[in-house]
Amino acid sequence: MRNRFDQELSALNNELIEMGALIERAIDDASRALLEKDPALARQAIGQGARVDEKEKQIERRCLRLLLQQQPVAADLRMISTALKMITDMERIGDQAEDISEIALRLIDDGCAGSLEHIPQMAWATVRMVTGAVDAFVARDLDRARAVIACDDIVDDLFNQVRDDIVRLIREDGADGEEAIDLVMVAKYFERIGDHATNIAEWVVFSITGEHGNERVI
Amino acid sequence: MRNRFDQELSALNNELIEMGALIERAIDDASRALLEKDPALARQAIGQGARVDEKEKQIERRCLRLLLQQQPVAADLRMISTALKMITDMERIGDQAEDISEIALRLIDDGCAGSLEHIPQMAWATVRMVTGAVDAFVARDLDRARAVIACDDIVDDLFNQVRDDIVRLIREDGADGEEAIDLVMVAKYFERIGDHATNIAEWVVFSITGEHGNERVI
Repeated sequence: MRNRFDQELSALNNELIEMGALIERAIDDASRALLEKDPALARQAIGQGARVDEKEKQIERRCLRLLLQQQPVAADLRMISTALKMITDMERIGDQAEDISEIALRLIDDGCAGSLEHIPQMAWATVRMVTGAVDAFVARDLDRARAVIACDDIVDDLFNQVRDDIVRLIREDGADGEEAIDLVMVAKYFERIGDHATNIAEWVVFSITGEHGNERVI
Repeated sequence: MRNRFDQELSALNNELIEMGALIERAIDDASRALLEKDPALARQAIGQGARVDEKEKQIERRCLRLLLQQQPVAADLRMISTALKMITDMERIGDQAEDISEIALRLIDDGCAGSLEHIPQMAWATVRMVTGAVDAFVARDLDRARAVIACDDIVDDLFNQVRDDIVRLIREDGADGEEAIDLVMVAKYFERIGDHATNIAEWVVFSITGEHGNERVI
């Protein structure tokens, strides 16, 4: 019985790593689509969305089955409940990579992608956060998870800088309203991705220590 | 044993209803703060955020305890897994009500809140969706849940109209960039609230029928 359960847990772990790889790829493709003005990459990122959703459902079903058929305790229960929460944040990152890619396609069409200096910085910072959160999960690395959490403020600051850039863009004569709104949306999506990466890192900390946001959950 | 379990389930149900009431109040306060230019209401909505977060943690702990200590099957397991998913969407609605309120405070300070015709429509539509989703859960009302899901397209259309309004605003001379960005953010938050209300309604359908998005999960 225990053996079968261990196999299931190990399969769950592998699925989470696969889902992590999918979202890393999606956000990396979306960022490069935007910065390199590459519509093929944008379409690729949009295509990843369905695979991320499918993986989320698969993991969710496995978690519910494990909770139902077994009676996991302590570290195992923590692992399963962490998985259930993590996949929600991972799925949102996939959604936001799709949203960014759709805007990238529009901006590329209009010939105005990547015209603000702080957006590439946001893209790099959030791609690093997502990769860091997934790596921290894979390696059970507390320090790495905490480093991701510390990055969230940097991304929030970058969002405010993009916002100021766009306000300036609008004030200057000839600013295109559509482009301004698209760019602020892209920045907002990156900021949200930073939030979700932070949540994932916090769940990694929880799965290792049992503490979430300075309190014990179970 | 069964009796104790039933009591726990009933307590869980009551907590979900309380959390529903909290987010209904938060989004209603945030909308009215914006439309009636009332900073006191905005501050009240921001204050609700912490209560929503606390309630989410409380419900989450109860769900994990129930999954761990009991071995719920069929309808009970569905109820508990629905609760675990619903509270994530509910908590986000609380967050977004806070975000809207913070922008409302800034817009009120600058004397320019509520200057677009489609934003009040978005506010009314999303408040109705949130109320409908919570009511559908409380009354186990499938029709009501489906009516909420059908409203999501209306809110998405309204978002596009607000977007167009703002593009026009920016094109006209003298448009204030900060105001434009604040308004588009408010519209985006309302659109996201509509998405979360739709998710909640889909979980209500799942808790009644066992079907989620046209497929059986467990």
